[in-house]
Amino acid sequence: MMTPLSAMLRRQVFQLRLQNPARQYYHSLWAMSVRSKANMAGELKKPEEASLDLNHLITANRWSGDELAAVKTTHREPTDWVDWASYMTVRTLRSSFDLFSGYKFRTTLGAMHERDWLRRVIFLETVAGVPGMVAGMVRHLHSLRLMRRDHGWIHSLLAEAENERMHLLIALNLRRPGPVFRGIVIAGQGVFLTWYSLMYLVCPRYCHRFVGYLEEEAVITYSKLIDAIDADQLPMFSNMKAPLFARQYYNLPKEAMVRDVFLQIRADEACHRDTNHFFSDLKPDQPNTKVDHLRKGHFQNQNVHSGVLKLQREAQSKVMHETFQSLDHDHDGFISTDDLRWAFQQHDTPFNDEDLDEMVRKADRNGDGKIDYQEFVKVMSEGDFH
Amino acid sequence: MMTPLSAMLRRQVFQLRLQNPARQYYHSLWAMSVRSKANMAGELKKPEEASLDLNHLITANRWSGDELAAVKTTHREPTDWVDWASYMTVRTLRSSFDLFSGYKFRTTLGAMHERDWLRRVIFLETVAGVPGMVAGMVRHLHSLRLMRRDHGWIHSLLAEAENERMHLLIALNLRRPGPVFRGIVIAGQGVFLTWYSLMYLVCPRYCHRFVGYLEEEAVITYSKLIDAIDADQLPMFSNMKAPLFARQYYNLPKEAMVRDVFLQIRADEACHRDTNHFFSDLKPDQPNTKVDHLRKGHFQNQNVHSGVLKLQREAQSKVMHETFQSLDHDHDGFISTDDLRWAFQQHDTPFNDEDLDEMVRKADRNGDGKIDYQEFVKVMSEGDFH
Ligand SMILES: [Fe+2]
Ligand SMILES: [Fe+2]
Ligand SMILES: [Fe+2]
Ligand SMILES: [Fe+2]
Repeated sequence: MMTPLSAMLRRQVFQLRLQNPARQYYHSLWAMSVRSKANMAGELKKPEEASLDLNHLITANRWSGDELAAVKTTHREPTDWVDWASYMTVRTLRSSFDLFSGYKFRTTLGAMHERDWLRRVIFLETVAGVPGMVAGMVRHLHSLRLMRRDHGWIHSLLAEAENERMHLLIALNLRRPGPVFRGIVIAGQGVFLTWYSLMYLVCPRYCHRFVGYLEEEAVITYSKLIDAIDADQLPMFSNMKAPLFARQYYNLPKEAMVRDVFLQIRADEACHRDTNHFFSDLKPDQPNTKVDHLRKGHFQNQNVHSGVLKLQREAQSKVMHETFQSLDHDHDGFISTDDLRWAFQQHDTPFNDEDLDEMVRKADRNGDGKIDYQEFVKVMSEGDFH
Repeated sequence: MMTPLSAMLRRQVFQLRLQNPARQYYHSLWAMSVRSKANMAGELKKPEEASLDLNHLITANRWSGDELAAVKTTHREPTDWVDWASYMTVRTLRSSFDLFSGYKFRTTLGAMHERDWLRRVIFLETVAGVPGMVAGMVRHLHSLRLMRRDHGWIHSLLAEAENERMHLLIALNLRRPGPVFRGIVIAGQGVFLTWYSLMYLVCPRYCHRFVGYLEEEAVITYSKLIDAIDADQLPMFSNMKAPLFARQYYNLPKEAMVRDVFLQIRADEACHRDTNHFFSDLKPDQPNTKVDHLRKGHFQNQNVHSGVLKLQREAQSKVMHETFQSLDHDHDGFISTDDLRWAFQQHDTPFNDEDLDEMVRKADRNGDGKIDYQEFVKVMSEGDFH
């Protein structure tokens, strides 16, 4: 039986489908909640069918189980003075950083907690995104200015920079740092950016070796983090699901845990380590042939659709908010059975008081007998209204 | 009938197939030339089947006929003082450039020849590759330093920069400029890079509008170039095939002409024009939703395999050179019938003197009765030995 409300909703859904997948999603959730009551299942398309497969479009390929298992902490022995200079720079930086960040102190005491790990990871990733971008830009400008080809380095370098930025954004999904920390990061980037840019103009070989050694350390750091999780020293991480952002980026399944994300990140770091040591072995005009990971889709195209995704999220919360307000007839900030009765009366729906009570009961999580906005969002997002 | 030479070649071909597609290609060409004589057609795989489909891997999608036809010269009216400032900057730059480069003078006289067009295009493209890279880098560093998302701008900007660099490399395939011109380009980049970077830090909106107006001019310039070709004013361009590099980049068919390449480039410029005007309309934290062209594959992944391609080209010429030397028995720099007779005697082949004469005659283009290296390369590359 087709009710006027569901008919109206259905019209809306079809109108909005092409315009905005998010609106359509919520409208059809709402329509479904009505439909299931009115016994009209199967008339609407599933929302997934109508909307864009954003998940597939934005993701880099995830590292396979075999690839993850093949990741090793490795060390390339320095063989000449440039190597040694890079190596000593990294060693010095690491020791000072471990000391001043309290890492050395805390690991000795076994007191590295989740927040300490995240602080460390966030700081390191804000730095890690710089070298690839600098090197990519320098080579790009060289190519333009000197009118010569690049031979496949730029793409690889920029992909590395973007990948490191994604590591940062993933870590930020787990913890937002405070103002002091942010100040240090801003100052740190100023210093590091200047130094690295100048060094790259003078001696690219030193710079790539430097990143190679830095990434050796990154692989070690993430390995220790994963070991700590496996040794039950980080209970919060052990039980934490992977954030949606990380799942989308790595194309991980819904049940993925934070540990799976760290495994993916470690594989990325190992890849950057090998690529940069390789770059350091090459002359600047030799071709980059280490592109298999790019061919497989790692690090690629990740942010093409992030703009569209943001719009989608915004549209979602706007539609959600509007729907809530239109249902909250007495404007007290809650949807009560009375509000629902009024809403459905507007559309001559066949719900009785018992139905309305049950709808509220299903959504009402804190048991105050009415639906607040948070509860409304929850129930609409999960689609368990029906 | 299986001859020892062809058997040996076949063995070589199979050994080398996985190792190097280029070697395999030339060995199988050579093997085919023997095979066709020895009547063993069909035993070897076609070289295309065995080797990597590099063509498909490195290309951006080409703009379709409909897309090309939809390209228009457009103008966005300046609406506020930032727009006006950008517009006046571009107008001033263009007028001065037209004057000092002699473009104004030559177009008035109708004396813009191919070399003048190429000089103009090359200079403009060395400049055009800067803004996208600068903007992409600034936004990348902002994202890292301020720990906030980018919302899909970076990828688009870097893809633009890379696309402009490809325009430059394509133009360089048509003409290599001299030292004075190169000096001007180097100085020009220094000035423009500094100015644009500072401006982008101060006012991104101005910068994107500036690029928008610059690209309006680029579309006009390429339109005039195409019109000049169509009006038979540029006979060299009218009859010139698209260089291999451009064909690979745009995935154009073998019969594509230089004019087709300019059409593709103009479509790129129109796309950058619209994207940058769009960026200028957005606030820096609004999401980039103009990503349809990226979704279709335009401007993407173009240089992932250029390193591999370079190695392939090097291997090709090495194998070619070695083969030539091994055939040039008397080391006089030419392959004569005597040389060939000796080569085939080593392997007990059933060729008679008449066959050998015909092989030489087929390859000998300048009619001196022997095959020089250039003729050898030609005949081996075209596979018309058989
Ligand atoms: Fe990282
Ligand atoms: Fe890293
Ligand atoms: Fe261009
Ligand atoms: Fe352009």
